[in-house]
Amino acid sequence: MAANQESLEKFYEREIILADRELVETGSDDILKDADKDDVAFLVVGDPFGATTHTDLVIRARELGIPVETIHNASVMNAVGACGLQLYQFGQTVSLVFFTDSWKPDSFYNKVMENRKIGLHTLLLLDIKVKEQSIENMARGRLIYEPPRYMDIATAAKQLLEIEEIRQEQAYTPNTPCVAISRLGAPTQSFKAGTLQELSEYDSGEPLHSLVMLGRQVHDLELEYLYQFVDNKEQFKLMVEQDQEFFKPPPYVPPEENDSD
Amino acid sequence: MAANQESLEKFYEREIILADRELVETGSDDILKDADKDDVAFLVVGDPFGATTHTDLVIRARELGIPVETIHNASVMNAVGACGLQLYQFGQTVSLVFFTDSWKPDSFYNKVMENRKIGLHTLLLLDIKVKEQSIENMARGRLIYEPPRYMDIATAAKQLLEIEEIRQEQAYTPNTPCVAISRLGAPTQSFKAGTLQELSEYDSGEPLHSLVMLGRQVHDLELEYLYQFVDNKEQFKLMVEQDQEFFKPPPYVPPEENDSD
Repeated sequence: MAANQESLEKFYEREIILADRELVETGSDDILKDADKDDVAFLVVGDPFGATTHTDLVIRARELGIPVETIHNASVMNAVGACGLQLYQFGQTVSLVFFTDSWKPDSFYNKVMENRKIGLHTLLLLDIKVKEQSIENMARGRLIYEPPRYMDIATAAKQLLEIEEIRQEQAYTPNTPCVAISRLGAPTQSFKAGTLQELSEYDSGEPLHSLVMLGRQVHDLELEYLYQFVDNKEQFKLMVEQDQEFFKPPPYVPPEENDSD
Repeated sequence: MAANQESLEKFYEREIILADRELVETGSDDILKDADKDDVAFLVVGDPFGATTHTDLVIRARELGIPVETIHNASVMNAVGACGLQLYQFGQTVSLVFFTDSWKPDSFYNKVMENRKIGLHTLLLLDIKVKEQSIENMARGRLIYEPPRYMDIATAAKQLLEIEEIRQEQAYTPNTPCVAISRLGAPTQSFKAGTLQELSEYDSGEPLHSLVMLGRQVHDLELEYLYQFVDNKEQFKLMVEQDQEFFKPPPYVPPEENDSD
């Protein structure tokens, strides 16, 4: 995670071309040029199949008769297990984008609700804005990019609370337990467990960040692991127990005896 | 994936102790012995946090004040994306164990149903039996192990069909589209897409195998990628479309106009 272009070039002993989003999404012809004759390697952060554009690149290569070999890699999709929550207890992964005054996309909300209804944890991937243009610069056709922005934990938690405030369907509450994951895989990685409300005031430091919202199914082993990341163990345990009341299936009622039998 | 103990010892230039299930589950004291003074590395297949016993090992190390550093790795939990289905469209992962005449555990069934109700794909991890004793040998206290067994795709598909036959709740049908994944990450890895019925007669070759059952939410890009693994593209497409009728939400009905307004 601490590698940069220079260190990678030294490691691979060859030149590396930085592929920004634009090149990956629209420049597949450039990337695949002469790849039928020469070896072309496409390096990604995380697992190669973590993004639809990468899948698309493989399809295009195959259409051109270019053999593709994939070398898999760790990804946030599995490294998230480092927080102590078990991977098989996660539901669908959702993305959270930066809100603006006029645009607050909340498609994540129904998905979190679906996961939590069946007791599962949710991994929320937080927005990354790199090489974005301001509306003014875009309108004037100026290729000036804004500084990169990475959503931090407090912003994510606040946006989640804002949408719950609007929707009021209790997909989650301010007291719902979550885990903040920062700089996963880097030497400075850190975890913080707390309620959504608590995390809305958490200083998560340098990027990148991800957030996990707990589901009702929390094993003792998971809870024991999370305790090392909380401020107050008893309080956190109470919040987990309270949150487990949401979406609880109705208690089992034995079928009535049929006297006529 | 093609590494063995010898090649790993050569690579790491040190002796490697083979840690079987018993050692990992009950021998944490042995593994952690002197780990506060010496470096002890615990090598796993896949990601270190893919199994609860590994999480437990980390907890025990921390209790003993032994610092733990984790190096993440690719895992079937994310490498499954190589079949062309998008990772964020997967629900909870389930395990399928070998049935016996008297024991046919079906806890996976409700989980597959939950995933499919909300349109998600399901990764099914297939049973591995290594160092298992026969009931007779166990009863007589003889430490004789059966040859290792790895569940193949046909067995998995047949077991799934058997449970649907018993439960009759249509969590899936014989026509539900699935993807067979064999030897993922190895040079001989292969994929086969077809209905559950078709895969119940599929010869999947050498282990390891995993199975993915599709959910209703299948993007065009996912489908396009799967076509390369099917026998009959038109037929597969038809099966996907038919399967999408299951768990379909009711069509939107606009609210009635209130004439009194």
